[in-house]
Amino acid sequence: MNKHKVLFLPHNKEVIVKDGENLIRAAMKAGVHINASCGGEGVCGKCRVLIEDGNVDGGTSEKISREDYAAGYRQACLSSVKSDIVVRVPVESAIDASVLNAWSSPRRAAGVREVNFERFKQNGCFLPPVEKKYLELPKPTAKDNLPDVARLISYLKRKYNEQRLVVDLPVIRKIPDIFRECNFNITVTLARPVQIGRKTHIINIQPGDLTGENYAIALDIGTTTIYGQLIDVNTGAIMARYGNFNRQISYGEDVIARLVYAEKPEGLKRLHDVVVEIVNHIIKKMAHEAEIDSEQISVMILAGNTTMTQLMLKVNPKYIRRSPYVPASALYPPIKAVDLNITLGEHVSALIFPAISSYVGGDIVAGVIASEMYKAEELTIYMDIGTNAEVVIGNRDWLVCAACSAGPAFEGGGIKFGMRAIKGAIEDFSIDPLTLEPMNITVENVRPRGICGSGLINIVAALFETGVIDNIGRFNRDLDTNRIRSQNGIYEYVLAWTDENGIDKDIVLTEPDINNLIRAKGALYSGCMTLLEEVGIGFHDIDRIVLAGGFGSYIDLERAMTIGLLPEIDPDKFTYIGNGSLIGATICCLSNHIRKDVVEITRRMTNFELSETASYMNNYMASLFLPHTDMSRFPRIKQRLEARKGKDFEGRLKSS
Amino acid sequence: MNKHKVLFLPHNKEVIVKDGENLIRAAMKAGVHINASCGGEGVCGKCRVLIEDGNVDGGTSEKISREDYAAGYRQACLSSVKSDIVVRVPVESAIDASVLNAWSSPRRAAGVREVNFERFKQNGCFLPPVEKKYLELPKPTAKDNLPDVARLISYLKRKYNEQRLVVDLPVIRKIPDIFRECNFNITVTLARPVQIGRKTHIINIQPGDLTGENYAIALDIGTTTIYGQLIDVNTGAIMARYGNFNRQISYGEDVIARLVYAEKPEGLKRLHDVVVEIVNHIIKKMAHEAEIDSEQISVMILAGNTTMTQLMLKVNPKYIRRSPYVPASALYPPIKAVDLNITLGEHVSALIFPAISSYVGGDIVAGVIASEMYKAEELTIYMDIGTNAEVVIGNRDWLVCAACSAGPAFEGGGIKFGMRAIKGAIEDFSIDPLTLEPMNITVENVRPRGICGSGLINIVAALFETGVIDNIGRFNRDLDTNRIRSQNGIYEYVLAWTDENGIDKDIVLTEPDINNLIRAKGALYSGCMTLLEEVGIGFHDIDRIVLAGGFGSYIDLERAMTIGLLPEIDPDKFTYIGNGSLIGATICCLSNHIRKDVVEITRRMTNFELSETASYMNNYMASLFLPHTDMSRFPRIKQRLEARKGKDFEGRLKSS
Repeated sequence: MNKHKVLFLPHNKEVIVKDGENLIRAAMKAGVHINASCGGEGVCGKCRVLIEDGNVDGGTSEKISREDYAAGYRQACLSSVKSDIVVRVPVESAIDASVLNAWSSPRRAAGVREVNFERFKQNGCFLPPVEKKYLELPKPTAKDNLPDVARLISYLKRKYNEQRLVVDLPVIRKIPDIFRECNFNITVTLARPVQIGRKTHIINIQPGDLTGENYAIALDIGTTTIYGQLIDVNTGAIMARYGNFNRQISYGEDVIARLVYAEKPEGLKRLHDVVVEIVNHIIKKMAHEAEIDSEQISVMILAGNTTMTQLMLKVNPKYIRRSPYVPASALYPPIKAVDLNITLGEHVSALIFPAISSYVGGDIVAGVIASEMYKAEELTIYMDIGTNAEVVIGNRDWLVCAACSAGPAFEGGGIKFGMRAIKGAIEDFSIDPLTLEPMNITVENVRPRGICGSGLINIVAALFETGVIDNIGRFNRDLDTNRIRSQNGIYEYVLAWTDENGIDKDIVLTEPDINNLIRAKGALYSGCMTLLEEVGIGFHDIDRIVLAGGFGSYIDLERAMTIGLLPEIDPDKFTYIGNGSLIGATICCLSNHIRKDVVEITRRMTNFELSETASYMNNYMASLFLPHTDMSRFPRIKQRLEARKGKDFEGRLKSS
Repeated sequence: MNKHKVLFLPHNKEVIVKDGENLIRAAMKAGVHINASCGGEGVCGKCRVLIEDGNVDGGTSEKISREDYAAGYRQACLSSVKSDIVVRVPVESAIDASVLNAWSSPRRAAGVREVNFERFKQNGCFLPPVEKKYLELPKPTAKDNLPDVARLISYLKRKYNEQRLVVDLPVIRKIPDIFRECNFNITVTLARPVQIGRKTHIINIQPGDLTGENYAIALDIGTTTIYGQLIDVNTGAIMARYGNFNRQISYGEDVIARLVYAEKPEGLKRLHDVVVEIVNHIIKKMAHEAEIDSEQISVMILAGNTTMTQLMLKVNPKYIRRSPYVPASALYPPIKAVDLNITLGEHVSALIFPAISSYVGGDIVAGVIASEMYKAEELTIYMDIGTNAEVVIGNRDWLVCAACSAGPAFEGGGIKFGMRAIKGAIEDFSIDPLTLEPMNITVENVRPRGICGSGLINIVAALFETGVIDNIGRFNRDLDTNRIRSQNGIYEYVLAWTDENGIDKDIVLTEPDINNLIRAKGALYSGCMTLLEEVGIGFHDIDRIVLAGGFGSYIDLERAMTIGLLPEIDPDKFTYIGNGSLIGATICCLSNHIRKDVVEITRRMTNFELSETASYMNNYMASLFLPHTDMSRFPRIKQRLEARKGKDFEGRLKSS
């Protein structure tokens, strides 16, 4: 795809963007502030810029006069970059470019790590749990009238040296007729054992040669969202992807609410039925999209947190939320999909990722698989940041893990105008240090409707760096702006006025919101700290941090460090893996070698209950600051803050 | 129990009977003929005898005058032996005792072999497939919050060195609540693997200590009858027994008729449902009788012929009756009883005895287990004589088997007045060689209603020994009796006139009936012969013949040899084992060691399809005589027949 250079003046900052990129997003990416309250719908008209060289598409509205348009003025939020351009941003005369740049920095997300399924084949890991074989069996005669099943087994032994074969009753029931319908030319589906020496099950028999069609389903059962992938196990190709909300949300937003609901009469059944229904919907959608016959799906692998797993399996999760937080089981045997009411063939087993503890579930184990940290020499921290946050630290020699009670702030929960990262959510933000005017960027560039997790981090980081809030998250009461105000004694910052946004009231960020975020990030950071201390190392020993969860890709590393969510280490050490749970499940659809690792990982991983770990509370209390009580842990931020001391703009203070 | 001596005169034959024995049965047992047409109901009045010494109860009716009674005359069929007695039987003056005795001989059934479960324990074979353990688990704490299942498994490992434990989903679902309901004091049920090194399944969990209650069900699924035993697996005690007709009979008397019905629309389902219904009934009856909670039944083991097994498992048996006679499978994996709609706990597995071929089924394998022939040095023939007849020959080194198409004659099938061995069936018979009057003994001593299998053998043997029929089963047309007559060109012998019997016409035995029996016994004998020839030995090499099947206990060995059903060898070599199938299933409820032998036996046993074995047809043709073409095989009979030559009674011939 075509790429273009965008040079912002007077900042003198350059950024490379893809063809058609929204100009205000390009500015955000470059770390250039442009006033923009309305999220990119062109309503507020504040984001006027001058295109000094090159072309943009659009950028005009009633807010731009004919003359201004001819002179090169455009609304940034309505402009698409179509060539290399030079853009001049109008800034207050009091601010020079060097100062501007000190206040803001380019966006920097973690490098994306793609799983390379080709590598699997090269290193001999490609050994799917299910395999189809086409067989032309010898026909029975008076001299050779072995029972049908014995005929099949002895042929597989003779021709392929298959050992320890088992045929289950439903397959036996199909065998006599299918053998004769297709003249003893059949396709068998073999389910391979994870452990060498265990039994291979003949799980299905089909007439003719169907070896070309053999599929698997990988599923991530999230508290909020369920994602599926349909995989061709012959090639490793992803045939379809589909995600949908977990409709259990109607019975409770988060895990705890679900646990409470599950204790009501029929509650467990209801939650089970609902999640199964959506799983069935996802499977159907994917089969349709990939244009495959769902009869050719041979296996499914599920990963989910401990509660989601127990609800999926209809195992009472009552004791997960009661001290001492005991899940029913870590490991589950393979379960017939039909026994879970999943609409797949009766031969299909659902393989369940094992859990570590009540709050470190199969999704995390799957993520560890996806990250490959358990095979590496380098020390890695795996962080899955969602409704809660789970952390795994270790390498091929050891693994420790903990669940951090981060609460739902990262997903917009507990925030006055918090929302999920859907259309209209403020996902990025910058503030003019002098005028304190915002630059809101929303999902899909529409009028703001609320704030999502990444937006929240970026807002709080920007407010903190510009001195609008202090290190305990309190607004500076002396600033001369109508955007900071007290409502019923609670201070707040107005992100978007009613007439600029997509709802019927001002969208604000309150001090309690900031405190919620501080507690959330404090829980995650102190959780990591505690684990590190327990194993006697520090963040400086860490070679790699893997971020997982839908949220991870949107986290701006610098801003996450600014608020003390992430440790201040080399950004190159961060990678973003995406939905680790789904990737781990997908990998296991293609490799029994790695499925064997799964059980090994559950044995090796030591879980810490943070609430029972002596040092945790101290670490947590020390983390309830921006970025932290101990500023020596955040030297870059410390340096930036010190560099700005005394550079506060007199002009923004109220005249006393 | 009190025993009495009965001396019959003028025969001078003595027999020991139990107190209260019917006098006519005592006579039959001694080999003494008394005219008795009415089966023992006192109607015909022909069985009048004189009690010369000692006492009988009863024995009187309107047929005995007051004077005769005072003189000691009684009706034998109404008399019970209450002391040592001397009985004089009125005989035709023309016959002296020595002749009488040559015509008849005492009854001699095979010695009954009881299975001694105590011996199991002594030789270390007592290792039931299911075991209950009571556990007082440590309660979870903040420091020890293992998942429930992991807690259970690690405790079993630590305390009992249990390895390779698996817990299935239904048990996992029960665990969290049960653990806490009973303060972590629980009973687990372990299902032991047959093969060492395989997995032990934790199949059930119950609150408190229920180790004292652990039961198994053994079932023999017969074509005609289904028998069950309820076994205490802690002690090996049989708690209850129950048998009932297989109600599939409504859809066809024999295996072939069932196979035909199974091909009708819904036929297989119907037959499956019907047999399951009766199995459920039997289980309920036994649990009720033993006063146990059927929830405490932990396992069931089923043995049946190949067709019954496939119908029970709802596996299409269509190809069993079509050349080349291929069953669906020899081996079946353990199947959840509930998946077969059996009303037992969902933890209960049904273990299925494997089949050898389409017509040598799991019932025969179970019988081989029961007979222990596969462990012995002695050469044994195992014969299960029922609707069909199956034969196994061998010892601990080798085993061969075959199904003989004996047809249903032994169960009364294909016989004009044939019936099962129920009330009113003529089960024993003797004939007065001069008058040709019969002595009929019926089941429960009521008026005759028909002829059962053992009756048929005894009638034909008696007719043959007395020269009433020849060696191809043809009636001697020259005998002067109204009991032999031709109806529509078919010769027959009247066993009981209408006014003496319990139906509305004369009960007769026809020449076609005799031919059916000859074909049946010929099939069995020639089947044995063929197997023996195939392995290069003869009947003289055989150390033991084990008879199985309900029928076996009623077979009089001498008479069965007389017609050539059994080989003429030392009667001491015969043992009767009863329902070998049920006993084998019962043994396996108590011993995994022996369950391991089951699979071993199926591997070792070589099946011969007689129709495909070259020598069979010659052997069969040679067997279609009484007792056989080759009389050198039956030297005792040959000698008896020769001894009687020329002793025929002139008086019984028609005056020409």
